[in-house]
This record gives sequence, C-alpha cells and structure tokens, in this order.
Amino acid sequence: MKLATLKDGSRDGQLAVVSRDLTTAHFAAGIARSMRQLLDAWHFISPQLEDLYATLNGGKARHAFAFDPAQCMAPLPRAYQWADGSAYLNHVQLVRKARGAETPESFRLDPLMYQGGSDDFLGPRDGARFLDEAWGIDFESEVVVITGDVPMGSSPEAALEGIRLLMLANDVSLRNLIPAELAKGFGFFQSKPATAFSPVACTPDELGAAWQGGRVHLRLDSHWNGRSVGRCDAGPEMTFHFGELIAHLAKTRRVRAGSIVGSGTVSNQDWSHGWSCIAEARAIETIEQGAPKTEFMKFGDSIRIEMLGADGQSVFGAIDQQVLGPVDAT
Amino acid sequence: MKLATLKDGSRDGQLAVVSRDLTTAHFAAGIARSMRQLLDAWHFISPQLEDLYATLNGGKARHAFAFDPAQCMAPLPRAYQWADGSAYLNHVQLVRKARGAETPESFRLDPLMYQGGSDDFLGPRDGARFLDEAWGIDFESEVVVITGDVPMGSSPEAALEGIRLLMLANDVSLRNLIPAELAKGFGFFQSKPATAFSPVACTPDELGAAWQGGRVHLRLDSHWNGRSVGRCDAGPEMTFHFGELIAHLAKTRRVRAGSIVGSGTVSNQDWSHGWSCIAEARAIETIEQGAPKTEFMKFGDSIRIEMLGADGQSVFGAIDQQVLGPVDAT
Repeated sequence: MKLATLKDGSRDGQLAVVSRDLTTAHFAAGIARSMRQLLDAWHFISPQLEDLYATLNGGKARHAFAFDPAQCMAPLPRAYQWADGSAYLNHVQLVRKARGAETPESFRLDPLMYQGGSDDFLGPRDGARFLDEAWGIDFESEVVVITGDVPMGSSPEAALEGIRLLMLANDVSLRNLIPAELAKGFGFFQSKPATAFSPVACTPDELGAAWQGGRVHLRLDSHWNGRSVGRCDAGPEMTFHFGELIAHLAKTRRVRAGSIVGSGTVSNQDWSHGWSCIAEARAIETIEQGAPKTEFMKFGDSIRIEMLGADGQSVFGAIDQQVLGPVDAT
Repeated sequence: MKLATLKDGSRDGQLAVVSRDLTTAHFAAGIARSMRQLLDAWHFISPQLEDLYATLNGGKARHAFAFDPAQCMAPLPRAYQWADGSAYLNHVQLVRKARGAETPESFRLDPLMYQGGSDDFLGPRDGARFLDEAWGIDFESEVVVITGDVPMGSSPEAALEGIRLLMLANDVSLRNLIPAELAKGFGFFQSKPATAFSPVACTPDELGAAWQGGRVHLRLDSHWNGRSVGRCDAGPEMTFHFGELIAHLAKTRRVRAGSIVGSGTVSNQDWSHGWSCIAEARAIETIEQGAPKTEFMKFGDSIRIEMLGADGQSVFGAIDQQVLGPVDAT
C-alpha cells in the first residue's frame, strides 16, 4: 500500500491512498483523516485502506484523481519522534578518515543515532529555506521507516515487526555549524534544520524481495542540480538493519506509534557509486587530493532523491526541492 | 488559566480546565478535545477556555468534579518537539568542575541544548520503569514552557511572545550511560528515557509577578524519598531566559506549536539551597570530599517535584512518581 498526505491548509493535511504506479490517488476520508490517526490505530484502519488501495489499482475507485507530488506534505507532516541513525559505517569511516580520526571498533557493534526535531517537516517539493548560505547547506539521502508501538527492551527481530511504513528522507545538515555544536557535547541541534520526505510512504510488502533482513536492497539516486551524484545501494552495506536501529532506540524507553527512524546517509565502499551527501564527496576529495573541492549548496540549488524498484518504476516518488534564501527570490 | 489532560484510555487523553486552587476540574469538551488541538489553534480556542476557567473558579461550573492528579497524563501527553536547555550555568560548572574540566567562556553566551524524545511522556503520578538499576537513575527538576509557532530567526524578545504555557518536568537521566554516549559525539539518546510532567500547565499570567524577564522567580522543591533535597530559586540564576532558549532553537528552523522547551536542572550557587538532581549532589561531594557519596535512585524510590507560589499554594501540582523495575513488584 502507498500513502500520501495532501495539503489542505491544516497542520496534518489529508490522508490519501496512492496507486502503485503513482498516477492516481483517492482520499482516505471516511476511513482515516490523517496519517497520525492511521498510525494510532494501524491494525484497525490499515485493512480498510488496503481494500481501497486494491480498488484504486484496479482502476475502479470512483473518486480517484491524478496524483500530484507538488500537493504533498511529508507523509507524516509532523511526528512525535525522529531518530536518525548513521547505519552505513562506510560513511562514518570516510568522514572520520578525512579528518584524520580512526573509527573505533565499537562503532561496528553500537550504532550511532541522534534525536532530531520532528515538529516541522517539509513536503517533497517544498523549498528548504535558510537564513545564511555560509552555514554549509548539505543534503543527506536516506531511507527511513515509521514504526508502530515497540516495547522497551525489544530485540532487533521483534523491533522489525514494529515497522509500518518506509519513506525516503533528505536529512538536511548545516555542515559548518556541526563542529562547534558537537564540541559542546550535546549533539546536533541548530545544525539539523527541517527534514524533507518523499511523496509517498509504502508498506514493506510493496518492496517485494528488495525488503530483506530489515534492509532495502535497491539503489538510492541523488541528483544535485540535475547531475547524478549518487547511486548507492541501500542494502548490503547497511551495517545495522532497521530492527537493530529501533532496538537501540528502545533499549531504555518505549517507542510509540508514529516514530520515524532513519538509516543515515546511504554509502557504499565502491566510490564509483557516488555519494548521498556532499560531506562524503568532500571527505573522498580530502583523502585523495588532500583538500575538499566540492562546495556546499547555494541558494537556488536543487536536490532530487528517488529510488527505483526492480521494475524501473519510482517506489516512493521523488523528493525534488530547491534551496531558498531568507527572502524568496524565485 | 490552568489546564490538565485526563486519562481516558486514548493516546492524547481529554483536556480539562483546573481551578486555580487545584481542587476542581471541568472537561473542555465542546471547546477542545485535546491539548494538541488547543495549541494548534490557540488564539481561537484559549479565550473560550478562559471563560470556562473563570466560571470554574467562581464555583459556578455545572459539571465540575474533584481534581485528582493521579488521573492526569502529562498536560501534553506526546509532543512534536522536546528541546531541553541547560540554562543554569552553575549546574554546568559544578558538574564539569567535579570531573576536572573548565567551563568555556562561550558557555555564557551560547546555551547548551539537546533534542529529546517526545513520543512517550509520563503523567505526574505514573511510575518510571527501568530495565536496569545499574544505569544510574537520576531525576532532574526543571521548569519548561510549551510554545506556539515561532518563526525562524526570531529574537529572544519575540520568542518570549511565543510562550503559551508553563509546566514542571522531571527530565529523567541515566547517568551511567551518559559518558559512553556523549563520547560517541551524537549527544544524549539512550541516556534520556521518558520525561514526566506536572499535573497542570499554566498560562504565564497565573504566575503574576513571579514571571519576569522570561524566568520563573519561585523556588522549585525536590523531595527524594520524602526528604527535602532541593529548594532552588528558579529565577535570578537562570543564565539564559526562555526567550533566549527558544531563539537558540529557532536560529535555523521554524519552531512549531506544541514544542516543549526546558530550562535544564535548576541550580543555585548557594549550596544551602540543595540540588535538583543527584548528579549535582555528587559533583558537590566530589569537589568537597574528593569522591561522590550519594548513590543514584533505586527501584522503589520516590521523587516529588513541586513549586509553591507567593501565596504558598502549589502552582502546577506535584510530580510524585516512583521508580519501578522491569517487573512491577509494587
């Protein structure tokens, strides 16, 4: 099942079911108003939406309309939790190596995760607005899941069962604010502005055989200003699968329905696959040439993040956003 | 106006207006179902609740009932953001001094804040459950605010205008998990389990002259296992006022309605006022005697956090919770 939240002027938008080929949609009205309502009562509501999804895919939904990603909010426009991992150890190693730091062996056993802000998410085509270009605007192409309730102390295997939906994310980072912020010791804060999400969220079964072992075995495409910069495989090199990330989160607390858990920047050891954030390009340049060359994003830049299925069709639709300055000059 | 959220089996509970003296309450049904709904449309809904509050205080509300803090969820049972500061620099200095670290001069200008989890808050009388006593269970008595929408780049003065409600919080920390977690560089994560909140949230006008310059000029009482351990003044020594904390948060992103922003552990330079978390007691012991003596909380321990107004009456009601082990043996 594929789901989207359409803009209607409200904070939570209106839930819609979207056809598998992303061409048509149908409001979920009468079943659930919002994604939050669905997640709060998943087992009751989702079967009804699955029925509507089957009808829509069969071309028989009476009030279907053309699906337009520009009308989308984030599938979950605001969430009670956004916990992002850094599950591709290759990314961590590259960034650390570029600044001359070893990667501790413990990083193979204990995932890096940070708590993000979740009050203000961006839709897939919303501009990302910043007050200062000099903050070092970077994109991060990621795969994320939305969970149901997961009990405290859950095993990674049990945590996998708590996954309700998958999406793509652009976990925007302000790279030039990070060093001073992390030096304070309390983690990311100002350096992590609003995150953007893909037009649709999919249930895991939509991925077929590509969803295996808590990982998505597909490539994640990143186009920066129209140029392909990354086509990294999100599957085999994900050091910690989503069940492990959720279990890490649930070690000391309950994880409640509607929590979003992210993979961190998708990264491959084979550099020919490119990169899913500019920081990684700069790390590779530093390692190869002694200094970074690629500059961070400028006002007016665009970033497109998409994942194609085995059939070549877009699974989640594309995040395709523009970086905007403090006064909208577009 | 004083507001509470009463348990009704749902995730968001039911909004109620509570009398100034905390003796009676009245459901807000017909005006707003939940605290979230109120915060989403504050300017429309709050005047109607103020009318009900006046009627309730006058003893003329027809369906008033006795107010029972044991029936309370957190006033906002789950939130889209929980951003906690460490605004009492004395606390930071003590903890750092105990481990032989200086406090950088920049800490006077740039507040320490971390992003907390906000999917699972505890009510004022809910037991706080932990899987392992050895994690070093500590309470932290704090003052917190709930905001409306605050634009990106707001000044501290403008941010102050965004404050809708005040509460008390017990920002539980797992002290023995913190050193390894902060060493990883991504901030608190497993070391910050569910936070608990006071029975009621108050509009700033309820504090009268005690609400001044973005600070609450009242003492915060902490009783651990019935013994008074802290009576710190929350006012003059708050290095960064709430407007400054919110502006810090809003530097790179919009802050959306229903965000909770915390003061961090309330702390005074005069040690005779006691302490608002065990870590600070242990820091003082280390500085005075070379080693910490006070142990962290045990299963079965209780913590009571309350603030009295100038009239000697409880402003927010008391957080009064028990620390529980993995299997409830109470």
